[in-house]
Amino acid sequence: MSSNINIVLVNTSHPGNIGSTARAMKTMGLNNLTLVSPKEFPSDIANAKAVGCIDILENANVVENFDDSLSRSSLVIGFSARSRKSNIPSLAMDELISMLNNHTGDEISIVFGNEQSGLSNEELQRCNYIVSIPTDDAYTSLNLASAVQIFSYEYFKSIDMKSKKKTATNFDFASHSTKKHITQTFLNIMIELDILNDKNRKSLTKNIHIIFNKIIFTNNEANLFLGVLNSTLKALKK
Amino acid sequence: MSSNINIVLVNTSHPGNIGSTARAMKTMGLNNLTLVSPKEFPSDIANAKAVGCIDILENANVVENFDDSLSRSSLVIGFSARSRKSNIPSLAMDELISMLNNHTGDEISIVFGNEQSGLSNEELQRCNYIVSIPTDDAYTSLNLASAVQIFSYEYFKSIDMKSKKKTATNFDFASHSTKKHITQTFLNIMIELDILNDKNRKSLTKNIHIIFNKIIFTNNEANLFLGVLNSTLKALKK
Repeated sequence: MSSNINIVLVNTSHPGNIGSTARAMKTMGLNNLTLVSPKEFPSDIANAKAVGCIDILENANVVENFDDSLSRSSLVIGFSARSRKSNIPSLAMDELISMLNNHTGDEISIVFGNEQSGLSNEELQRCNYIVSIPTDDAYTSLNLASAVQIFSYEYFKSIDMKSKKKTATNFDFASHSTKKHITQTFLNIMIELDILNDKNRKSLTKNIHIIFNKIIFTNNEANLFLGVLNSTLKALKK
Repeated sequence: MSSNINIVLVNTSHPGNIGSTARAMKTMGLNNLTLVSPKEFPSDIANAKAVGCIDILENANVVENFDDSLSRSSLVIGFSARSRKSNIPSLAMDELISMLNNHTGDEISIVFGNEQSGLSNEELQRCNYIVSIPTDDAYTSLNLASAVQIFSYEYFKSIDMKSKKKTATNFDFASHSTKKHITQTFLNIMIELDILNDKNRKSLTKNIHIIFNKIIFTNNEANLFLGVLNSTLKALKK
């Protein structure tokens, strides 16, 4: 799958990050890696990190300069932590993912800079769009392979969701009708207790519906809850 | 922020993964780390990976067995790659995130198992829910710190979005103690109805806590709900 996505690492300093990137990619079904002037490659350190996915390293496209890596790309996305005053439009992650899902055919380069300095302004000028991964203001130092992992995960998730959309989900959550049943039983208790009257009935009923709508019951929880309400109602009617 | 989220690593083999986990957490604003019986800790290898976030390692809670790590947790989420035939409900990532956003107050444990074997069936039995990170069928070997990174990123993204949305709306939410009061009153109704007995008391009490923990009541809603429960209790005691 996803053969038109190309992960490009520019001037990577630590070979371990190259190996970890390969692993991050492969878990999410991405296989095309380009290395622009890596400090150390091939590398035993990289191989050691690429458990079970040495193939990505062996097939990596190693080039000397950034422009060479982009020759076949119709779309170039630069990941950058820093928001810069540049004329390059930025995309939020979800905008990027939706763009990728709608982009067919030619190769797309997803570019990550050096661990210390990120992508230079010159490199960013080669990108069609810039994307930043949100991080906490107090500590923004996202590891290179982690950044690739997050992108790859978001992309895979969108592909995965698309393919699974029609296979019915199988989560053990209470159905809408069960929740309606719970809500109605609770309202019946309120009637039994003379809490509802002509004046407040409409607004209180609405409030109770709002409260129960907010709860995600599992089936077990719904059964427990409904059991208590039913016993209550029965006891009150005695 | 997010001080009620506790990342729990169980039986971690490689200290480097502990350091990388600390970094993954801190980029996403998470600071509470518990280590259950790590193979090597404290460790220079862990420290070397935790660039700029040694504080998380220094403050980590190191315990001998898994149960000790859960003593203060109201909700325990186990991350597991394998889908098992177990009776523990599973959540998709977005369901988990929405649950976490609606869960106030008590500590929540997000648990990750050993690198090779994951969480054992016994450990999974201690979890309220299981979450799997989607991976490509051809290669599912997600690195431990990468799994923590993906969870932390998803959680941070939701908080980040919430705080950006918050500008205008300033709902008047019920306090934790009000919610505890509601929960206790509901349990008292169950006692009055003879639903709780020595055999089921512990598990049902826990389930009821989980259910009410999921609800975000406004103060008005909490007062309405508590009013109904109090009237019910009074009527049952007649």
